[in-house]
Amino acid sequence: MLITDLDESESLAFMARARVARLACARDGQPYVVPISCVCHDGYVYCASTEGKKIDWMRANPLVCLEMDEIHSPQDWTSLVVEGRFEEIPNDPEWEGERKLAWSIIQQRPIWWEPAYVQTIVERTEKELHPLFFRIRIVRISGRRGVQTASARK
Amino acid sequence: MLITDLDESESLAFMARARVARLACARDGQPYVVPISCVCHDGYVYCASTEGKKIDWMRANPLVCLEMDEIHSPQDWTSLVVEGRFEEIPNDPEWEGERKLAWSIIQQRPIWWEPAYVQTIVERTEKELHPLFFRIRIVRISGRRGVQTASARK
Repeated sequence: MLITDLDESESLAFMARARVARLACARDGQPYVVPISCVCHDGYVYCASTEGKKIDWMRANPLVCLEMDEIHSPQDWTSLVVEGRFEEIPNDPEWEGERKLAWSIIQQRPIWWEPAYVQTIVERTEKELHPLFFRIRIVRISGRRGVQTASARK
Repeated sequence: MLITDLDESESLAFMARARVARLACARDGQPYVVPISCVCHDGYVYCASTEGKKIDWMRANPLVCLEMDEIHSPQDWTSLVVEGRFEEIPNDPEWEGERKLAWSIIQQRPIWWEPAYVQTIVERTEKELHPLFFRIRIVRISGRRGVQTASARK
């Protein structure tokens, strides 16, 4: 197997395609990781969510990590790890511009599967629709691709 | 969308099928998440790896989180989050039995794509094959399934 690092342009192209990431946050040394819909735009990864564990944890500790991958086969995979900082986009007049930007970016893609966007019944109780917008400021990107090569085959 | 919790038997059945998980660890409040091949067996998730960042971090802080999912479509997905503890299975005579067990479990599945198992060339340098076995002791499982329902459609 040949494993190579993605260069910056390859990483950015990969991120631009990504629709789902695994978002990890941590509290008191305990990590927590969940899948989330996301859209990458201009140095940020934009997401929406409802209130809950991950939001509580990221408010307490904004250090996060995102992982995005395309695992086509054991011999053909790409994985990207993004270190970042959680930034909430509150529903305040002073953040109105940022909220509109976030909404316009997120709307570009059909990712209406998160509880944030659709009428959702969780354990027989309808959850209220109060989408909460946040973004991850990208601090560091590390991407790798694995391919099978004739010389490395065994 | 209707979101329901998986019960214990559904969670265990889902874990038994899983071949890839996203493994999150944390150091100094910074989470780190990567994809990894894994096999679930009898209260543990068995993995192999080579030395590197995730191993260093888990040795320093054994609190980890695994996420496994099957996202067939926005209207049909399952996600399982496992809180656990990293346990290295060292290459010592006193751990021989555990190493043999780990190897036999991991060998059951065709997951030979990790650098731990195959001749791997990383950035033009052949990486030595020293598989390192570890397992995650399962502490808590939380699984959810989302499906589109006629009444919840919008």
